[in-house]
Amino acid sequence: MKNILLASTSSLFGEAYLAYLTSEISSLFDQEVIFIPYARPGGISHDDYTVKAAEAFAALNIKLTGLHTYADPQTAIRNAAGFFTGGGNTFLLVKQLHELDLMDALRASVEKGIPYLGTSAGSNIAGVSMQTTNDMPIVYPPSFQTLGLVPFNLNPHYLDPDPTSKHNGETRETRIREFHTQNSEPVIGLREGNWIRVLGEKITVEGRYDTRIFEPNKPAYEVPPGTLINFSGL
Amino acid sequence: MKNILLASTSSLFGEAYLAYLTSEISSLFDQEVIFIPYARPGGISHDDYTVKAAEAFAALNIKLTGLHTYADPQTAIRNAAGFFTGGGNTFLLVKQLHELDLMDALRASVEKGIPYLGTSAGSNIAGVSMQTTNDMPIVYPPSFQTLGLVPFNLNPHYLDPDPTSKHNGETRETRIREFHTQNSEPVIGLREGNWIRVLGEKITVEGRYDTRIFEPNKPAYEVPPGTLINFSGL
Repeated sequence: MKNILLASTSSLFGEAYLAYLTSEISSLFDQEVIFIPYARPGGISHDDYTVKAAEAFAALNIKLTGLHTYADPQTAIRNAAGFFTGGGNTFLLVKQLHELDLMDALRASVEKGIPYLGTSAGSNIAGVSMQTTNDMPIVYPPSFQTLGLVPFNLNPHYLDPDPTSKHNGETRETRIREFHTQNSEPVIGLREGNWIRVLGEKITVEGRYDTRIFEPNKPAYEVPPGTLINFSGL
Repeated sequence: MKNILLASTSSLFGEAYLAYLTSEISSLFDQEVIFIPYARPGGISHDDYTVKAAEAFAALNIKLTGLHTYADPQTAIRNAAGFFTGGGNTFLLVKQLHELDLMDALRASVEKGIPYLGTSAGSNIAGVSMQTTNDMPIVYPPSFQTLGLVPFNLNPHYLDPDPTSKHNGETRETRIREFHTQNSEPVIGLREGNWIRVLGEKITVEGRYDTRIFEPNKPAYEVPPGTLINFSGL
């Protein structure tokens, strides 16, 4: 049974790393987790990123080990007791997962029921593709396809338009609309403080705020925390 | 002699399309221009986008024709008297230019001295790569390499961090710093209202505001309008 938590962000403003997810993380994982550090926020090293995540997990009595420390990451993924993929740059993360041929192994483990936590880029890759990321294309991945653990795409750090802005760059909503001129997957705009919870075939949106949902050829709409996500019959 | 104008944006807040560039456009072009509409802002059609651009150019007595209307776009590019590439989604634009095999022809014409105007995505592609675009990866281009008409990358619609923001998504500066963990090209952060002017080998930044420049392993710095850009001796 799938057991997945996809958070918009790792941290809320003024709070410690992962602090707002403490009770969720404690109930999601048992004693051990493999950390996937490939998104490298700010370009930090895999080691430094793993230290940061390990500290937060140690406070919850969960041992966290970086995937990059295993000689054979495919086997490590097959034997893992849990996964946490941290945020950063989605292009870096997806390039590395494809180049090390880890997408299929990771998908298989999570579909088998190994718990998965993603934040930001780590949530993005649970969607059908990474094509609704906010990140800059700093490297060229061999494909934009991702894990497809959920039948839609995610936009983490979803941001409402600022009505006072005089900036002429596209709003987040405009960008997602442009995605829908070329693609048909629904997109969940996940505000910071919200997450998606997957238990078996049941998918809900959770957290502090309403969640904004975009489907092709349909006005965007908002759903409150606790709403079941089912695009065939929503 | 190269004759290029790369603008951050097509429009300023509350102003008509291309209004702030009127005198620049009049002096850049003679009587005819080919318009490259492939970036399709908001997903509008090539025809609709071309109508919009043609109206703005007609007011300056310049005839504008969409590149998509030519049966043989390579030949059209070789025979063109001027180019305008409009903004929109950089991934769409770059995918189309690569798939129609137009990058080399366009580069050759502009290097020969045919005047080139870009706005936003249309400016982005004048850089070494499109890897400092702000756009969403709504399609997968066969390559991120672009025209390389200038020896650096551009970040159009450059936006300063908002000191009051409680949002946890990356700032533009953070994203460009992440680019520099993987790439070495300098990046010009072009605020709305600014543009880059190339005349032969002379490159200057122009417009209303200072321009922010990012080089690897160096603090970002600001240069005023009129500054000569020369990364070997700046």
